[in-house]
Amino acid sequence: MTVKPVRVTIWNEYRHERQDPAVRAHYPAGIHAVLAAALEAAGCTVRVATLDEPEHGLDAATLAATDVLVWWGHLAHEAVADAVVDRVQQRVLDGMGLVVLHSAHESKIFRRLMGTTCKVMWRERGERERVWVVQPAHPVAAGLPEYFDLPQSEMYGEPTDIPAPDELVFISWFQGGEVFRSGGAYTRGRGRIFYFSPGHETFPIYHHPLVQRVIVNAVRWAAPNDFSGAPVAGIRQGGAHRPDPLEPLD
Amino acid sequence: MTVKPVRVTIWNEYRHERQDPAVRAHYPAGIHAVLAAALEAAGCTVRVATLDEPEHGLDAATLAATDVLVWWGHLAHEAVADAVVDRVQQRVLDGMGLVVLHSAHESKIFRRLMGTTCKVMWRERGERERVWVVQPAHPVAAGLPEYFDLPQSEMYGEPTDIPAPDELVFISWFQGGEVFRSGGAYTRGRGRIFYFSPGHETFPIYHHPLVQRVIVNAVRWAAPNDFSGAPVAGIRQGGAHRPDPLEPLD
Amino acid sequence: MTVKPVRVTIWNEYRHERQDPAVRAHYPAGIHAVLAAALEAAGCTVRVATLDEPEHGLDAATLAATDVLVWWGHLAHEAVADAVVDRVQQRVLDGMGLVVLHSAHESKIFRRLMGTTCKVMWRERGERERVWVVQPAHPVAAGLPEYFDLPQSEMYGEPTDIPAPDELVFISWFQGGEVFRSGGAYTRGRGRIFYFSPGHETFPIYHHPLVQRVIVNAVRWAAPNDFSGAPVAGIRQGGAHRPDPLEPLD
Amino acid sequence: MTVKPVRVTIWNEYRHERQDPAVRAHYPAGIHAVLAAALEAAGCTVRVATLDEPEHGLDAATLAATDVLVWWGHLAHEAVADAVVDRVQQRVLDGMGLVVLHSAHESKIFRRLMGTTCKVMWRERGERERVWVVQPAHPVAAGLPEYFDLPQSEMYGEPTDIPAPDELVFISWFQGGEVFRSGGAYTRGRGRIFYFSPGHETFPIYHHPLVQRVIVNAVRWAAPNDFSGAPVAGIRQGGAHRPDPLEPLD
Repeated sequence: MTVKPVRVTIWNEYRHERQDPAVRAHYPAGIHAVLAAALEAAGCTVRVATLDEPEHGLDAATLAATDVLVWWGHLAHEAVADAVVDRVQQRVLDGMGLVVLHSAHESKIFRRLMGTTCKVMWRERGERERVWVVQPAHPVAAGLPEYFDLPQSEMYGEPTDIPAPDELVFISWFQGGEVFRSGGAYTRGRGRIFYFSPGHETFPIYHHPLVQRVIVNAVRWAAPNDFSGAPVAGIRQGGAHRPDPLEPLD
Repeated sequence: MTVKPVRVTIWNEYRHERQDPAVRAHYPAGIHAVLAAALEAAGCTVRVATLDEPEHGLDAATLAATDVLVWWGHLAHEAVADAVVDRVQQRVLDGMGLVVLHSAHESKIFRRLMGTTCKVMWRERGERERVWVVQPAHPVAAGLPEYFDLPQSEMYGEPTDIPAPDELVFISWFQGGEVFRSGGAYTRGRGRIFYFSPGHETFPIYHHPLVQRVIVNAVRWAAPNDFSGAPVAGIRQGGAHRPDPLEPLD
Repeated sequence: MTVKPVRVTIWNEYRHERQDPAVRAHYPAGIHAVLAAALEAAGCTVRVATLDEPEHGLDAATLAATDVLVWWGHLAHEAVADAVVDRVQQRVLDGMGLVVLHSAHESKIFRRLMGTTCKVMWRERGERERVWVVQPAHPVAAGLPEYFDLPQSEMYGEPTDIPAPDELVFISWFQGGEVFRSGGAYTRGRGRIFYFSPGHETFPIYHHPLVQRVIVNAVRWAAPNDFSGAPVAGIRQGGAHRPDPLEPLD
Repeated sequence: MTVKPVRVTIWNEYRHERQDPAVRAHYPAGIHAVLAAALEAAGCTVRVATLDEPEHGLDAATLAATDVLVWWGHLAHEAVADAVVDRVQQRVLDGMGLVVLHSAHESKIFRRLMGTTCKVMWRERGERERVWVVQPAHPVAAGLPEYFDLPQSEMYGEPTDIPAPDELVFISWFQGGEVFRSGGAYTRGRGRIFYFSPGHETFPIYHHPLVQRVIVNAVRWAAPNDFSGAPVAGIRQGGAHRPDPLEPLD
């Protein structure tokens, strides 16, 4: 069986890499470049969009040609225009996948889709994070061992305001005494959403082959199927009124 | 064991009853009056708030004294001020329960908390709805039989843009050929949310003793516990930074 | 991207077709033959096993070479040897997928994996069943419309003793007034399980192209990934003792 | 509102305390005595049953008068008679709650209800366990802080063969580098099941006031409601055939 390549758009805020030499040292061409290489190596078709482009690079045509959107942001969540957030949300509800990385838990689009502040506890001490696979049968766990270590990571901890995922795939252990639900799957409308928390910009986390494997897996998992029912957009635009019963009432 | 009375605020848009004689015939004192009587009979302390009061009756002091908010709206969702929606959302995240009834699936507050349009398919023909209990062990099913009938109801049908609930308690069968997940439980932040779809204003549905039982059950289920961890509001307001590890890093 | 063919074993009790002319009329070569043709057309590698073969056709070598097992049974659940049920259960826990069809809800293997009697309410009147897709984003909904009809079907209804699925994909409406959670996904150990209820032997249900599509989708969804952690069998056989901490205790 | 006392039966294997002075030092009157005192102080009506009584103390009359059964076992799971396991399972499916503690994850009754081996990774080094509350809104989290510590505990770790719970309430962090889903809620039939992992017999864990609070909460949560539909036992005993449609078919 042959599978069509997944069309991925990687959205990167792309500010840290240009402002901070410590981040640039890990990601001289931007975090998006490292993610793009990993996804292309896995057979995806990749384009990139960044905050400072017109419409943040997320015009309607780009979104229409995107199966899965990957999102990284941190410094400038509030600089993302609400009109673009509206457009991305509508595409997710209509079936586009969304993979949300690390500090993008506080992005407007993730908060919008989750319905909460999505706040987490955090500490930046460069401590060890151990990512445990708790649902090995899930597609996002494909090819992984029981756990893997990130020698230096930012701590994200419970309790969090991110809703419990429909399927919990990863739990992280931190050296300082915390745990975090670090990878979970959601469905909103016809779109599938995966949140994966490792990825702090001052450590080379996206160079780690197993982190790349998680992101590739998440993109494949989130890609839309070819369900042929009326699009949610139609329901939203007045198609929801069904005047005639499917079954005659008398 | 004695249990403190749940402090309930019933929010009713309260427009239909004043504008439409057919609705007034069922609810001369407002839908809220019928719900209030049922909740008081079950031992709850009830206050009422409506759209046309200042701040829609939902000032900060009222919300602070509310354990569970019940919401009914239909004609005027957009007339609810965003500032009030923000305030209600924050209270839910901090632990207040929310019971969302019928057409309030499209209220701003429910859409906000669910992250979707919450659209449903619908048809108004006064057809029979049969409400099946599919999770009898759930507290919201207490005291119910296997199913109960509403001889005349508005059809709400699948597919819907409301997210799959964490726990599905009711599924409705409609005479015209549709099904609907008519009762489901959600958690957002520290708040518990229950959506129950029967309740069209032109039929006397809230007079049905089993419908009242469902609403009483949902209110009890949604009432906050006394978890003593830091409130989410604290996490939202900067308390999320945990500088010192719980466990020394050595 | 190329995907390896899924290796499917179809297990069919294969008694009805030989005993009952009405069933034979629909399935002259057995229910398994119709399912095999649909799965082969979808690119799967298919073998067949039946009750009256030695070890019911499910010797260890066959199971070891099976990615997904499809199970149909009705008359003779108790004739399945416990040793074979044990073996199938272990393979599921170690990662083999399992697709359970119709009356196999009462098979020993499904009851074993679910932990309940898996009883349902039922009625055989040849009434209309309408299968609604309630989670269109799920892989098992790929290629389907919003709903499809089976003009004549056996009614399976709520309440049921089958546990609530992790993901609910289908809900059926029946002409006589019932609903049923007709398609749902489970994980047990490292195995993925899908139950799909339509399929009564006296109607030509497995000839329906959309029913075949559901089964093909379910097989693809249930196929194991290549998670590389220690197999559950190892945990079962004494590997569960981890004497040395991953992190020195100091 | 007044609530009827929950009728609890604590089942304790009661071998360790009689054989091992180190265990007896913590539990001179048996683990059940400490649990009974905590549950009685919380207003429950408590009886005790142990392995070496006739029918292990779980005759039909005792079970019929039990709302929630608490289960602790470790050394002698296989000594529990299958007939008793059958009886307990049936009562759970009919609505009795079940609270499963620590090493009882491998009890026959828990394996029966979960459908898996329920194996876990483990290590006995007396290391620190920190129990995090990840679903503060859940009734089983009532009265708890964000986390609490057990200075010395047996490690139970992922991956585990225990199925993912319907609701995950606790995640434990261990000093040696592991995490574990240490508290989760399940429904099987009409019975509610809570598993809570802390409780190793060589440490005084059941004397910890917050551990006692968890167990009290779990018992209250698992107590049956008064759903009035036909019991599952009826469905099991032939009542599942519904010959007459609720809705006339023509």
